[in-house]
Amino acid sequence: MKSQNQENFVNQLSIDCVIFGYSQNRLKVLVPKMVFKGDFWSLPSGFVKQEEGIDQAAQRILEERTGIGDIFLEQYRVFGDVPRTNREALEKLIAMNPDIFEQLQDGNFLEWLTQRFIAIGYYALVDINKVTPKLTEIDQSIDWYEITDLPQMVMDHEQHIHKALEALRLNLDSKLLGFNLLPEEFTMKDLQLLYEAVYDRPFRRNNFQKKMLDLDVLERMGKKLTGAANKAPYLYRFLTKK
Amino acid sequence: MKSQNQENFVNQLSIDCVIFGYSQNRLKVLVPKMVFKGDFWSLPSGFVKQEEGIDQAAQRILEERTGIGDIFLEQYRVFGDVPRTNREALEKLIAMNPDIFEQLQDGNFLEWLTQRFIAIGYYALVDINKVTPKLTEIDQSIDWYEITDLPQMVMDHEQHIHKALEALRLNLDSKLLGFNLLPEEFTMKDLQLLYEAVYDRPFRRNNFQKKMLDLDVLERMGKKLTGAANKAPYLYRFLTKK
Repeated sequence: MKSQNQENFVNQLSIDCVIFGYSQNRLKVLVPKMVFKGDFWSLPSGFVKQEEGIDQAAQRILEERTGIGDIFLEQYRVFGDVPRTNREALEKLIAMNPDIFEQLQDGNFLEWLTQRFIAIGYYALVDINKVTPKLTEIDQSIDWYEITDLPQMVMDHEQHIHKALEALRLNLDSKLLGFNLLPEEFTMKDLQLLYEAVYDRPFRRNNFQKKMLDLDVLERMGKKLTGAANKAPYLYRFLTKK
Repeated sequence: MKSQNQENFVNQLSIDCVIFGYSQNRLKVLVPKMVFKGDFWSLPSGFVKQEEGIDQAAQRILEERTGIGDIFLEQYRVFGDVPRTNREALEKLIAMNPDIFEQLQDGNFLEWLTQRFIAIGYYALVDINKVTPKLTEIDQSIDWYEITDLPQMVMDHEQHIHKALEALRLNLDSKLLGFNLLPEEFTMKDLQLLYEAVYDRPFRRNNFQKKMLDLDVLERMGKKLTGAANKAPYLYRFLTKK
């Protein structure tokens, strides 16, 4: 007898989302704590329904798990080593939460869940002030954590965060417009602070400005009105694609 | 009864390899033609065994299908839309090759093969002169094709090639050393010709040289010995990582 999950979802495939948040010149990552006893922090994750595309599945999972909808999610890597399994973490979770799993009507669910899983990693970068995560029944709490001060993550989820950060750094130039992170008009300093937060290092002002202008994605607008007119910085906005 | 494929391989997951080749300042792509009747050109593709990692699987598939072993393969994208299926191409292939499929002992094989598949795309860039593809029993022939002059590819495999090319262009700066494509010592002109082949456009010499030197991956060696000493170009090599 096939379990319900085998019917509804693609077998042995999961989706894990790393949501980076930017606020006050700091980069953080969104990590829910699961409702189960035993302190399980896990990236927003789930499975792919047979009748949905993987990008759709990632959007659905993120919205179901965190209340955040319609954000620009990007695939960055597939985690597919053999030793990568849910088994150890799941067995601990099950042992500590027997009441929850006794309620599951489908006897094959645990067998299904403890198989080898191949995880497609997605990441996004959002303005922390623009999103308000809403908990669902599987989450006890959800918080933004500094990359250098993460809670104890299940399985290889901490590695996912570090690999996603590498991908974010590698792609930031080309994804800036998609992430829609800055106000419509911004100064070169605003942009530099964002880069410094993502790369966790200072950039030299002149080099940074030249690099950004060379990308050919910025349009220079008027000067930002401040008290000291002669020191007013220029405002920029992103060129929309032709 | 589970089919043999369900036991041995991860269900609904395939691996597709786009192998770019560089030779004489041209970029090409390696496309095998399958032995089946009906003119099926398909990227080197296969499935993931339960006991192997996905990167391992990609290496094995490439070597089994083309005789090319031990090359630097990189994941670049997962193709996972719902309409993406083997069914149409496979049904045509089966209809034209009834003898081959009658021999298959496992009655569930076709059912298994015509499910929805999610494909993990890998790409590589090799020196055409350094590899000699060897055909296996599933290939009738194998050739290097110009990107702009591909044969009729099955399913979405032509799209895979275009997406892989985008990934190659985006990542060339950081993958140059890994692809190990140039001789140990090379001129700036050699490097420029490689970039021009990959991007299919000319680069301006001074800008290109500055961009490359700014990457901090090149070490300048002596001058290349030519007849006209005062015009001899410098030789460079890649800095190995500390």
